[in-house]
Amino acid sequence: MRSTIGWQVEGTSSTLRRAPLERRDLRPDDVAVRVDYCGVCHSDLHAVKAQNSEGGRPLVPGHEFTGVVTETGSAVTRFTAGDPVAVGNIVDSCGECAMCQAGQENFCHAFPTLTYNGTDRHDGSTTLGGYSREYVVREHFAHPLPAGLDPAAAAPLLCAGITVWEPLRALGAGPGTRVAVAGLGGLGHLAVKIAVALGADTAVVSRSPDKADDAHRLGAHGLIVSTDPEQMADARDRFDVVLDTISTPHDLGPYLRLVAVDGTLSLLGHLGPLTLETTDLLLGRKKLSSAGSGGRPATAAMLDFCREHGITADIELLPSARVNEALDRLRRNDVRYRFVLDMSDLDLAASLRSS
Amino acid sequence: MRSTIGWQVEGTSSTLRRAPLERRDLRPDDVAVRVDYCGVCHSDLHAVKAQNSEGGRPLVPGHEFTGVVTETGSAVTRFTAGDPVAVGNIVDSCGECAMCQAGQENFCHAFPTLTYNGTDRHDGSTTLGGYSREYVVREHFAHPLPAGLDPAAAAPLLCAGITVWEPLRALGAGPGTRVAVAGLGGLGHLAVKIAVALGADTAVVSRSPDKADDAHRLGAHGLIVSTDPEQMADARDRFDVVLDTISTPHDLGPYLRLVAVDGTLSLLGHLGPLTLETTDLLLGRKKLSSAGSGGRPATAAMLDFCREHGITADIELLPSARVNEALDRLRRNDVRYRFVLDMSDLDLAASLRSS
Repeated sequence: MRSTIGWQVEGTSSTLRRAPLERRDLRPDDVAVRVDYCGVCHSDLHAVKAQNSEGGRPLVPGHEFTGVVTETGSAVTRFTAGDPVAVGNIVDSCGECAMCQAGQENFCHAFPTLTYNGTDRHDGSTTLGGYSREYVVREHFAHPLPAGLDPAAAAPLLCAGITVWEPLRALGAGPGTRVAVAGLGGLGHLAVKIAVALGADTAVVSRSPDKADDAHRLGAHGLIVSTDPEQMADARDRFDVVLDTISTPHDLGPYLRLVAVDGTLSLLGHLGPLTLETTDLLLGRKKLSSAGSGGRPATAAMLDFCREHGITADIELLPSARVNEALDRLRRNDVRYRFVLDMSDLDLAASLRSS
Repeated sequence: MRSTIGWQVEGTSSTLRRAPLERRDLRPDDVAVRVDYCGVCHSDLHAVKAQNSEGGRPLVPGHEFTGVVTETGSAVTRFTAGDPVAVGNIVDSCGECAMCQAGQENFCHAFPTLTYNGTDRHDGSTTLGGYSREYVVREHFAHPLPAGLDPAAAAPLLCAGITVWEPLRALGAGPGTRVAVAGLGGLGHLAVKIAVALGADTAVVSRSPDKADDAHRLGAHGLIVSTDPEQMADARDRFDVVLDTISTPHDLGPYLRLVAVDGTLSLLGHLGPLTLETTDLLLGRKKLSSAGSGGRPATAAMLDFCREHGITADIELLPSARVNEALDRLRRNDVRYRFVLDMSDLDLAASLRSS
């Protein structure tokens, strides 16, 4: 096994602690990645909370990271040591079902292997995530990081970016379409940037009137304040696509009412079981969908699009030792717009440990 | 006021009784319609049940009927006495909102006036439905009944027909698309006929293997037995459109799993508040929609399509005096595939009453 170091929660504690971790020896199609930057996703909060209430095996979060290939397995063809790479929230899939064959590994019928808290398809071990200095991954699920994208600010593209890209593309966002992005956080601010770059007439829906300046800076044409009934009524039936990036359970009615006839409300938060009134769908022949992550071809297309349009996340970069502070602030939505952990501080910890 | 006769429930009884009814004097844009045939819709059952548990004003169900214009208001331009007409479940709307302007009166922002249990926009009275010998309606909401369509078998087109037509058209059913119709009842059998006529590769999903012959007779390519896990698994991700016509609350998961990537499950039953797992939508970027009734232009287009393709409902025609039997049997799903009431027997009752 390979030794590295990372941030984990154990038992029912909700505090991440620095700990030595093991990574598997490279299989023929594996690459070892030195993790340089890892984004902090709302899913990480959910996972820590679940661990906190249920206990269980040690958890290492992190599923949107960038770094550099340090070693390659004997059969690896796409990468050599020194290549910049990016890894998202899927690290394996069955490869054989219709979904995998169609490049939608995220919908794998046998369920994809998640980057953390997943079960490795070969040895049955639980995957440990990117809040660590090294990750070992099948080359198939590592993406070349395009030159020109800042590797720290690009890390969130691998989860937040692809999560907004997939529905925007599938729902045809582009010139002549009207897109509303509800919630201006990690997902939302990237959704605005990408929708604008796709050519869609884009608006932001937020509780906070003070996000108007940011909405405009990101390219949106306007801000609709969700707590203002008049503004919400004016926006009724106006949007072909409403991307709902709000991360906590909430009434979908007000957001469905913004959707135009034959348009779609796409839910991107982890909302769990939903309750909705069918009449909210019926009146306007509206559709509800949900999205999260993406397949390999879509991820490659998204990275290429972001390179072409110079899109990365607006981030607050913190040394990984401040991971608990990042999670606390994210819990309070106190981040504009994505925390990214700089993992290089783990080298010092490793050298102290080994000395 | 005009006098007629019809079938109503009163108080907390669930039995429909013959009763004299009043219709308004014709307004300038009204037509009086002699109701010849009225379909029996699941909504009628729901309305009778609600009346039964809550009591309230007398209820006359019926919102899919055909008949003949007997008299016209002073400003009526589209009809003259003797014209065959058809009326569906909407008899008025605000006419001014964006939805009405777009010909989607069924989505009227001020809510359309329903054919029964609606509130008249002028005098505030409660509308009484088509289980009666006469109906008075704004000419705007009466549709010319195309020649060549049997008026009894055409009556269900006005609710069941338009309800399946709207989502099939909106979701692009046609050559090269795969449509599954879940539930082979009043809505379902018309959905199969229309989907087949639109050119879609159409299958039926039913609990009853014994519906295979009917499915084929209606033009479907196959029957998937919903209680057979193997058949349901084989059909996973196969359909661009799944029309769910099942009229009682049920788990949507198995039907969502039939939907192809980027496809849509459209709910046509009155299912009330729904609970669903977002992962059932997420895994395959699937969409959920709901439909019911349609706007005026769509209704006209549907009637024209049905004329062209010779489509009407498969009906059991009963004298209106057997309405309670029809409702009882519909409650048990014992109908292939739609009851239609022949209202002419009410003339005898009227003549006995007046003699």
